[in-house]
Amino acid sequence: MIKIGVAGLGRLGLIHAENISNMKNTELTAISNLDETFNKEVAERLNVPYSYTNYDEMIENPELDAVCIATPSGLHTEQIKAAFKKGLHVFCEKPIGLDVEDIKETINIIDENNDKVFHLGFMRRYDEDYQYAKEMIDNGEIGEISIIRSYGIDPIVGLKDFIKFAKKSPSGGLFLDMGVHDIDVIRWLTNAEVIKVWANGTNKAAPELDEVNEIEIGTATMQLDNGVTGFLVLGRTASHGYHVETEIIGTKGMLRIASTPEKNKVTVFNEYGVVRPTSQGFPERFQEAYVLEIRDFVNCIRENRQPEIRALDGLRGTEVAIACQKSFEEDTLVEITY
Amino acid sequence: MIKIGVAGLGRLGLIHAENISNMKNTELTAISNLDETFNKEVAERLNVPYSYTNYDEMIENPELDAVCIATPSGLHTEQIKAAFKKGLHVFCEKPIGLDVEDIKETINIIDENNDKVFHLGFMRRYDEDYQYAKEMIDNGEIGEISIIRSYGIDPIVGLKDFIKFAKKSPSGGLFLDMGVHDIDVIRWLTNAEVIKVWANGTNKAAPELDEVNEIEIGTATMQLDNGVTGFLVLGRTASHGYHVETEIIGTKGMLRIASTPEKNKVTVFNEYGVVRPTSQGFPERFQEAYVLEIRDFVNCIRENRQPEIRALDGLRGTEVAIACQKSFEEDTLVEITY
Amino acid sequence: MIKIGVAGLGRLGLIHAENISNMKNTELTAISNLDETFNKEVAERLNVPYSYTNYDEMIENPELDAVCIATPSGLHTEQIKAAFKKGLHVFCEKPIGLDVEDIKETINIIDENNDKVFHLGFMRRYDEDYQYAKEMIDNGEIGEISIIRSYGIDPIVGLKDFIKFAKKSPSGGLFLDMGVHDIDVIRWLTNAEVIKVWANGTNKAAPELDEVNEIEIGTATMQLDNGVTGFLVLGRTASHGYHVETEIIGTKGMLRIASTPEKNKVTVFNEYGVVRPTSQGFPERFQEAYVLEIRDFVNCIRENRQPEIRALDGLRGTEVAIACQKSFEEDTLVEITY
Amino acid sequence: MIKIGVAGLGRLGLIHAENISNMKNTELTAISNLDETFNKEVAERLNVPYSYTNYDEMIENPELDAVCIATPSGLHTEQIKAAFKKGLHVFCEKPIGLDVEDIKETINIIDENNDKVFHLGFMRRYDEDYQYAKEMIDNGEIGEISIIRSYGIDPIVGLKDFIKFAKKSPSGGLFLDMGVHDIDVIRWLTNAEVIKVWANGTNKAAPELDEVNEIEIGTATMQLDNGVTGFLVLGRTASHGYHVETEIIGTKGMLRIASTPEKNKVTVFNEYGVVRPTSQGFPERFQEAYVLEIRDFVNCIRENRQPEIRALDGLRGTEVAIACQKSFEEDTLVEITY
Repeated sequence: MIKIGVAGLGRLGLIHAENISNMKNTELTAISNLDETFNKEVAERLNVPYSYTNYDEMIENPELDAVCIATPSGLHTEQIKAAFKKGLHVFCEKPIGLDVEDIKETINIIDENNDKVFHLGFMRRYDEDYQYAKEMIDNGEIGEISIIRSYGIDPIVGLKDFIKFAKKSPSGGLFLDMGVHDIDVIRWLTNAEVIKVWANGTNKAAPELDEVNEIEIGTATMQLDNGVTGFLVLGRTASHGYHVETEIIGTKGMLRIASTPEKNKVTVFNEYGVVRPTSQGFPERFQEAYVLEIRDFVNCIRENRQPEIRALDGLRGTEVAIACQKSFEEDTLVEITY
Repeated sequence: MIKIGVAGLGRLGLIHAENISNMKNTELTAISNLDETFNKEVAERLNVPYSYTNYDEMIENPELDAVCIATPSGLHTEQIKAAFKKGLHVFCEKPIGLDVEDIKETINIIDENNDKVFHLGFMRRYDEDYQYAKEMIDNGEIGEISIIRSYGIDPIVGLKDFIKFAKKSPSGGLFLDMGVHDIDVIRWLTNAEVIKVWANGTNKAAPELDEVNEIEIGTATMQLDNGVTGFLVLGRTASHGYHVETEIIGTKGMLRIASTPEKNKVTVFNEYGVVRPTSQGFPERFQEAYVLEIRDFVNCIRENRQPEIRALDGLRGTEVAIACQKSFEEDTLVEITY
Repeated sequence: MIKIGVAGLGRLGLIHAENISNMKNTELTAISNLDETFNKEVAERLNVPYSYTNYDEMIENPELDAVCIATPSGLHTEQIKAAFKKGLHVFCEKPIGLDVEDIKETINIIDENNDKVFHLGFMRRYDEDYQYAKEMIDNGEIGEISIIRSYGIDPIVGLKDFIKFAKKSPSGGLFLDMGVHDIDVIRWLTNAEVIKVWANGTNKAAPELDEVNEIEIGTATMQLDNGVTGFLVLGRTASHGYHVETEIIGTKGMLRIASTPEKNKVTVFNEYGVVRPTSQGFPERFQEAYVLEIRDFVNCIRENRQPEIRALDGLRGTEVAIACQKSFEEDTLVEITY
Repeated sequence: MIKIGVAGLGRLGLIHAENISNMKNTELTAISNLDETFNKEVAERLNVPYSYTNYDEMIENPELDAVCIATPSGLHTEQIKAAFKKGLHVFCEKPIGLDVEDIKETINIIDENNDKVFHLGFMRRYDEDYQYAKEMIDNGEIGEISIIRSYGIDPIVGLKDFIKFAKKSPSGGLFLDMGVHDIDVIRWLTNAEVIKVWANGTNKAAPELDEVNEIEIGTATMQLDNGVTGFLVLGRTASHGYHVETEIIGTKGMLRIASTPEKNKVTVFNEYGVVRPTSQGFPERFQEAYVLEIRDFVNCIRENRQPEIRALDGLRGTEVAIACQKSFEEDTLVEITY
């Protein structure tokens, strides 16, 4: 029995808590979260033995084998380090942190504790569609990659919540907040590093984002160190749903992953035309991937190995996102050196 | 210069008139139609030298080489015969007629006048999608055919007009009025004859059709003489548009022609989901096919040959449609002998 | 902890065994299967305490709460009855049985033991796509149903195995073996009973099926007691994969479930054109549905309730399938009275 | 009767010749082309009265009303000017020219002769899919445009011919040769001008292009003067066909034009999966658009008006393409000032 404590019970924390609670030979032993009332409700519903309003208290619990960190991004590095001090395995939501130096220092700690599993929440790598594409690419079925295009656009239905959320705690900006997933996908599928970027963006659809110093839609064009061009679109106002799409153009063929964000296999013929209903958010789109990544985390602990995703992937993603943000702000090409 | 007179200026007659008028080395020499005011308008717009309110007068015009008959179905056989008497080539809209004996007699006349071209308006055979499928089938790319399914469903937007129209002149019923196109497609693609049918139908979506003794949606299952099963759906109330679809299941593969009635190559992502706009009626869906069939008619005249579509195809289609109607009325299997 | 024994370790039995073994608060306590060597392998891999070569011995095991029966169809009714005698809850794969009288008698026993859960393996009802369509229909979003069409076509890659299997133990024929799933879907989505059928079929693609008295492809047209027409296609030789599709035409709209049997959300652009990879069999297509149906079975036990699927659904499906087989053999309309 | 001479009988010249020859009230009066044997063949097949091996001789023909120039790009400006001197209307294939100063001078001549029609061959503007999208955009159905992405990728089957062709006469490079179509689409759909670009490219799939100083695939990211970001992919080696696609992301919705380059409405289900056959080149994809643009040219002559496409559109396209080429060569952002 692997015993896990979940820190943070926002949308993602709750998903992890439920997935852990449903997993065989795994126990959701503790939760920590600011809202005591909500904790009680969750503890009761998911049968959680211990409940805390303070992360540091939770990791004192000697029963715990591991923590799953889904707190605001600014807290990640400190919580990772604290968990290692207690001898815990760590699953941490992306990003590792918001500041490059801080992340580098944390990676040192992670490396020193390499008898403990460290796992980073890039769940798209566990999605069966992305896995299928990755395998085709690695098998050479589309030849060498020339171009990769990746879209991550949130549905407009979530905009109000985002603004509320962003007022409380800065998201880090579109490129850091949302872009790291697509940047990771680009690095992972191409096996290459981004060396130069040019980013653009506007607030046309949601001028109210100006107040929170955010943009509504952004693009970044990337040069990779193997000659691949990457093109990234990030947004917060898709009227049709949660649009996560990746295209890979190779010398022998092309792949599109989720070219249309189909909710399921149903097609509706009605007064609007021929309609494919769409996925409405990450909990729905990546439901299975979230289960698989936590299962992999637990299996890593059991099998005493590290996952494929490394802390360095988190650092690289953040470095590229920061370069994009800088490029956007200064309207210029930004080179990245590692 | 081939000189043609068009009889009947309903939706289809007008399409033929315009197509003839736009064709090189062809002249729309005359029109005949009951509504004199409309005739004037059309004659002016399309530059037509002669205009009649009476078919028999039109075919007296010595300049004419050919007629294109797009009048109500009940008039077809008489008009075909009259045209042959005047030594004209004949293009006739489907069906040849409504009564089997009458059609047979007309076919005799057609056969006697085989120095004149007789062409029947099964325009689907000229559609590039159907042509592409036909070629694949004939090349053996899907093996031997086991099952064929064909849908012909009119958009609900046309229902009111149909009821008005049906009150004036009986359509012959769903199977005769609409089914002959799909029956022809089934016979053409399978190279086989229908020998047994079972038909069903209802008026759920349009109870008002009871008044005109029509049904809104009907199905027919067919046994063909080469062991193929055919399945037919006909309707008048598709909310999404004009749904003409044919599927062919072969021993080595399947084909679907217009599985969704896409209007064009545009996909719309909006609050309804991922939407393909749809075709809204036959003038739009078969625009190009109507041009090609008239062009083939003219080429047959020029090259002194007969088209692939024979009058017998019209008879067979009508016989099967009548059997379907009978099967529906008596709720029983109906065999067809030729 | 609910303790379950799985009888039969064919493809489906193994799926159930694995799903039970992965479920929290549930134990795969026993397996029974003829092949002792295979049993050992499975017992070791899935950590199963007890292993039997004999069903009757297994159900003597006093630790068991329930059995999951996935043995050849001819054994089902006896094994159901035996399980109830031991006071066990029963999950049984479709069909309940092959003989109507035998099934009726078994249903009596099931009814007498209604303090025990009886669950039948119509997994399509648990598939999220079918669930989504069912909900739209029940919400009236497509109006009243006029036509339902359902395809169940196995991939040709499985044909050899099927022939081997059919030589050992009769499948009951295409309509009984495969059709019951589609018949259940038709009954479930329309809330109606089939009252008249006409079936057709051939062996064009697989003449070798003659040897085992089977057909390769079959169709059945059905009249339902609410005026709906059903059309069924069953087959064993789809070259493109596992084609399970259902279409529902309503008075206000149409739905298609899995119009193309997409394997995932990846589109491939290569020398063959624009390609959607396809699902290759039921374990892949209904992976999630199999988990959900067993979970529902376990929840029924825990919550002391019966599932939505009733034994009567199994009887009705078998009755319709038998009528189809008879219609096919006698080439005539067959009425069904209940 | 409008009498037109066609200059150049390459693939495009031939298309124009045939379309003119089929158009009512229009005559293909002359052709000029280097290959005398081929001219004879075409003249006979299309019934052309006059045939020349020299453009300047052709335009001496006093019967001509207009010329259609489809010669190598380097000849365009001289031929346009010569035609105006003879008082002819001019249809010219894109690009107007290869050198900006030369084009500007030519535009002056065009402006001086504004009693004569000047039409430029941006046929995509006449494609019904592009027209449909343009109308939706102009109606505000997708709000304000944020991002536009346009792909123009030739099928690999044409690569050998291209290399042969490029050895004889320089294409001007990928951005000028192919890019001007997509650049025009971007300018047209957004009603904006490109002000800054960053281009990338490689020869991975076709290293043999190095010999002719060409690249196989290229991208360009563009900043437009209304805040729109454009992303362009151009290529010569698509294995699946002729991929011309445009996406427009607006504040209220998205459009994709030809997201997959479907050849027709047929779907094939075979051993490769679910396959949509693809368009294999511009003559097929834009067949109808080529007819419509020449028809518009002729109508402009008849109605004494100028087409929507202006010579300035040609200049702008060339300026942007040249900026892309420069950005690619110098690997830097390039600003464009007008």
